[in-house]
Amino acid sequence: MTETVRVRMLVAYDGTDFRGFAVNEGVRTVAGELQVRLSALCGVPVTLTCAGRTDAGVHGWGQVVSFDAPTDRFDPKRWTASLNKQSGGVVVVRDIAQAAPDFDARFSAKWRRYRYTVLNRPIPDPFLRHTSWWMPAPLDIDAMNDAATRIVGEHDFASFCRRPERADGTPASLVRRILDATWSAVEGEAADGSGDVGGNDPRNGIVRLEITATAFCHQMVRSLVGCMVDVGRGRRTPDDMARTLVAKDRATASQPAPSVGLCLWEVGYD
Amino acid sequence: MTETVRVRMLVAYDGTDFRGFAVNEGVRTVAGELQVRLSALCGVPVTLTCAGRTDAGVHGWGQVVSFDAPTDRFDPKRWTASLNKQSGGVVVVRDIAQAAPDFDARFSAKWRRYRYTVLNRPIPDPFLRHTSWWMPAPLDIDAMNDAATRIVGEHDFASFCRRPERADGTPASLVRRILDATWSAVEGEAADGSGDVGGNDPRNGIVRLEITATAFCHQMVRSLVGCMVDVGRGRRTPDDMARTLVAKDRATASQPAPSVGLCLWEVGYD
Repeated sequence: MTETVRVRMLVAYDGTDFRGFAVNEGVRTVAGELQVRLSALCGVPVTLTCAGRTDAGVHGWGQVVSFDAPTDRFDPKRWTASLNKQSGGVVVVRDIAQAAPDFDARFSAKWRRYRYTVLNRPIPDPFLRHTSWWMPAPLDIDAMNDAATRIVGEHDFASFCRRPERADGTPASLVRRILDATWSAVEGEAADGSGDVGGNDPRNGIVRLEITATAFCHQMVRSLVGCMVDVGRGRRTPDDMARTLVAKDRATASQPAPSVGLCLWEVGYD
Repeated sequence: MTETVRVRMLVAYDGTDFRGFAVNEGVRTVAGELQVRLSALCGVPVTLTCAGRTDAGVHGWGQVVSFDAPTDRFDPKRWTASLNKQSGGVVVVRDIAQAAPDFDARFSAKWRRYRYTVLNRPIPDPFLRHTSWWMPAPLDIDAMNDAATRIVGEHDFASFCRRPERADGTPASLVRRILDATWSAVEGEAADGSGDVGGNDPRNGIVRLEITATAFCHQMVRSLVGCMVDVGRGRRTPDDMARTLVAKDRATASQPAPSVGLCLWEVGYD
């Protein structure tokens, strides 16, 4: 029997042209492409486990995957160079390392952090169109943060998720624990080149949610963002957000925000 | 005869999927798409004049165009909304205003400023792949700035341009005046989310040229960048740059840098 090592890989990808991360026969997925290339490098079929199964169009900066590779083939430096060359920069391997034999990218993860970016300007930006949701209506960040505090903690997020069926037909639990959810105006250079501006300067207008939970349900971040942006636009109140959470009824929530602004930012392990 | 107004328009575009700015029958160009949409809005065929004819794959942030529109159709607010909706955010109209009758986006321009962005990191970034040239080899910014000082001023840039033929067969002048050329490491947030870092921090690695001239020849910025990046990598010296300028021979220059990192940033008028 071939000796194997457990490998941990840190992956960034532009999700625009992928039907999500997880392998899905017949469509282009990030894991699908990575598995083909890793199987070639390993000389045997490789199956990836990931920390977060991002949806179609969702991006990854700190996605973590694990798999087993034949010890005699394992070559992190060469693999990194080869994988980054093959993908044309669309899927980037940021790091490859040997992990403990029991490391599992999914089950060893203690928390997941996502970022959601809104471009809150009257005029869109061609260079941010793949990585932000353009929202010309002015947003009240304080109100959005008020709404965000209502969802922190352990709750049943049935109002904010697609409810999956288990194989035996029983409903899966949608109880999750949100550790933190904060909106902030990103400081930086003004889009018009007039120098550095504060995050609230209309010349900037990049508004971002950072949200951390032990785990998320399907479409949960996008659904929460949809509600919080409606709060920011004055269409809902922070109290509405709290009532929607308690209702455990998806019909009471806003439309999910588009996938374009969402990015799996970081995954925490012990 | 219909009364017309001279219109001045500020345009940003992601050049990735265009065969340049200028109209070119049978291929997708920025001006080609804009002219079709503006002609529909004006009810008559519109011809655009631009400040800088950017090449295939080159981006624009501050491109300026001028044209004549029927006075009774001119509606800057509605046109901006309509054009930005139609383009899907790829070509963005940042401003539309009435200009003086003799304003000409090309001939009234006093200077053009381009930016060229290099991603100088060992690992590429999927979100910067359309707007920067990935260069893993470490760059010496001081040496690049030394080289940049050699080209400031009025020179014959024959070594750094494609020489066009005039209609009568005589060679066109390649004498241009560079007002400023400066490389800097862009400060900002570290790519790995570890907070704000100085521009020289390897976690950042965004290195940018800002170059201003009264006007540029064809492929001039990319050719100058190719040479200066070779200086930054230690393949050439700043003195080589000066010698290449004097040689007036394109064979003595480096390969032009790829179009992906180039952006027409701003155009100056009185």
